[in-house]
Amino acid sequence: MIIDCHGHYTTEPKALLDFRKAQVASLDDPSRRPRKDSLRVSDDEIRDSVEGAQLRLQRARGTDLTIFSPRASGMAHHIGDEATSLDWAQASNELVYRVTTLFPRNFVGVCQLPQVPGVAPANCIGELRRCVEDFGFVGCNLNPDPSGGHWTSPPLTDPWWFPLYEAMCDLDVPAMVHVSASCNPNFHATGAHYINADTTAFMQLLASDLFTRFPRLRLVIPHGGGAVPYHWGRYRGLAMALSRPPLPELMGDNIFFDTCVYHQAGIDLLVKVVPIDNILFASEMLGAVKDIDPETGHHFDDTKRYIDALPMPAADKQKIFEGNARRAYPRLSARF
Amino acid sequence: MIIDCHGHYTTEPKALLDFRKAQVASLDDPSRRPRKDSLRVSDDEIRDSVEGAQLRLQRARGTDLTIFSPRASGMAHHIGDEATSLDWAQASNELVYRVTTLFPRNFVGVCQLPQVPGVAPANCIGELRRCVEDFGFVGCNLNPDPSGGHWTSPPLTDPWWFPLYEAMCDLDVPAMVHVSASCNPNFHATGAHYINADTTAFMQLLASDLFTRFPRLRLVIPHGGGAVPYHWGRYRGLAMALSRPPLPELMGDNIFFDTCVYHQAGIDLLVKVVPIDNILFASEMLGAVKDIDPETGHHFDDTKRYIDALPMPAADKQKIFEGNARRAYPRLSARF
Repeated sequence: MIIDCHGHYTTEPKALLDFRKAQVASLDDPSRRPRKDSLRVSDDEIRDSVEGAQLRLQRARGTDLTIFSPRASGMAHHIGDEATSLDWAQASNELVYRVTTLFPRNFVGVCQLPQVPGVAPANCIGELRRCVEDFGFVGCNLNPDPSGGHWTSPPLTDPWWFPLYEAMCDLDVPAMVHVSASCNPNFHATGAHYINADTTAFMQLLASDLFTRFPRLRLVIPHGGGAVPYHWGRYRGLAMALSRPPLPELMGDNIFFDTCVYHQAGIDLLVKVVPIDNILFASEMLGAVKDIDPETGHHFDDTKRYIDALPMPAADKQKIFEGNARRAYPRLSARF
Repeated sequence: MIIDCHGHYTTEPKALLDFRKAQVASLDDPSRRPRKDSLRVSDDEIRDSVEGAQLRLQRARGTDLTIFSPRASGMAHHIGDEATSLDWAQASNELVYRVTTLFPRNFVGVCQLPQVPGVAPANCIGELRRCVEDFGFVGCNLNPDPSGGHWTSPPLTDPWWFPLYEAMCDLDVPAMVHVSASCNPNFHATGAHYINADTTAFMQLLASDLFTRFPRLRLVIPHGGGAVPYHWGRYRGLAMALSRPPLPELMGDNIFFDTCVYHQAGIDLLVKVVPIDNILFASEMLGAVKDIDPETGHHFDDTKRYIDALPMPAADKQKIFEGNARRAYPRLSARF
């Protein structure tokens, strides 16, 4: 079984986008706020939205199951207040849930959290529980910067986040650490903000003993771990300077990187330096980069080809493609 | 000749640090501001500060010339106002100048700019001119985020920066794009803020046509180009999606990456994907990571070993070690 741990519903039906537009337009006048139950999407619309896209690419590329969440850049936690953020997370998660019920062998859900800048993330626990317990979701996306590029929240290692971590451990679900759109003109979303957030999160975790307090907390850092594998020597040296454990021990059963790195040389580096047990197959489709690489004739984000090309024992590839995902997302195995 | 394009005066005499402390202590009471001419450092103190450190390592590692600038994290442009920032930049640059006069074959200067958050960078032109014309400096360090981790300035491609670029082109000097200390608890300085800034700057440049307007502007992105080489496929794909030229053409004679990447696998990747003409040898010594790598028995930041180990034609290594630095810093050749 080949599990892609990082897919977004970037082909969402227009009605969902219209709902969001109406929500944003009503921010100054809550009386005009659209009701979540006004959102109407038929099963056929949902089927159509993935049949020619994610499902077609699963078949074409030979992957089986996508861990599927709402569009990352669409979360935009910096827009709106607690009420709008909850409505928006719920509407987005409910559509992902419907995808997973229509195609239960192809998709399993990961939820968007109703984060709001300046609001303690404990407000997300209810929606997390609903998605895990009622919808069978296996994890969540956690935005380390709900301000959208201004980085006004405490670091991920701050007690600010602990109530949410307690709920995650209780539910036995991991979080993918994933920012959303950037409203800071310095940061291109997919070209800077995403990658910076990955690097930032890893360094926060390196410098703290968060996992001593939460030994069952698991965090997936997407986009190949940001800059970390390329600067593995820097991080090994920083761990030494900060009297922290060696990086493989520090990652342990707690930190995972995905394979959303869109060229062979990058994947080669990733598997050379990062422990195989901490790498999860992923493509981020349909995601950040949609074109065909003229150098290979294949899509940049067809990351399975890069893994297939690795001179690596089959048992290690099986870990990357399936085994590690089952460790990081234990609720997967209850479903499959 | 082996030119290290990225060295900082991180062994500065205590008197300089004391001056800065007094300056910071006087921020609320300008009448107590220390006078720059109160700073007294003897030639012997300067000799002592580098003899056992940068000079010893040049000899031990077999490098010849270090392009030398004040401590990057010490710039701290977020502290103080225009007057203190100018005093601090001048004091720091004058000490670097004295290092270059005491050891003219070993060090050539690059200046700190008196940037201040919210102040147009045109205020830096005077100090840049002084350092280049009076001190023989060959470039400057340009902080894309003088707020120290809040990213409140416009992107590097905004006209906000153009007057400084005009002066740089007029003087024929490049800038290394280098942030300073982080006052945002999310960002560890050397483990996140530095690397993020590199990635951010590259993506800003990728998305703009800055070099059409400033064809003679040259920017060095340190720390191996941040996350960019590891995500080369992502950036190639983003360039396509944004209808921008291929990355080698985009970098052209305008964007250079250094080799401050502290392990062999990272350097291997760098030279595999980035055009050799755009790579400058550097070690960032004495810098971010000072320990010995237990896996190799050599210092993490002894980057010359990684270049030496590359299976690469000698002519290409000569470009990385010397030729490209002479292209990026034309004033070097006037001096050597």
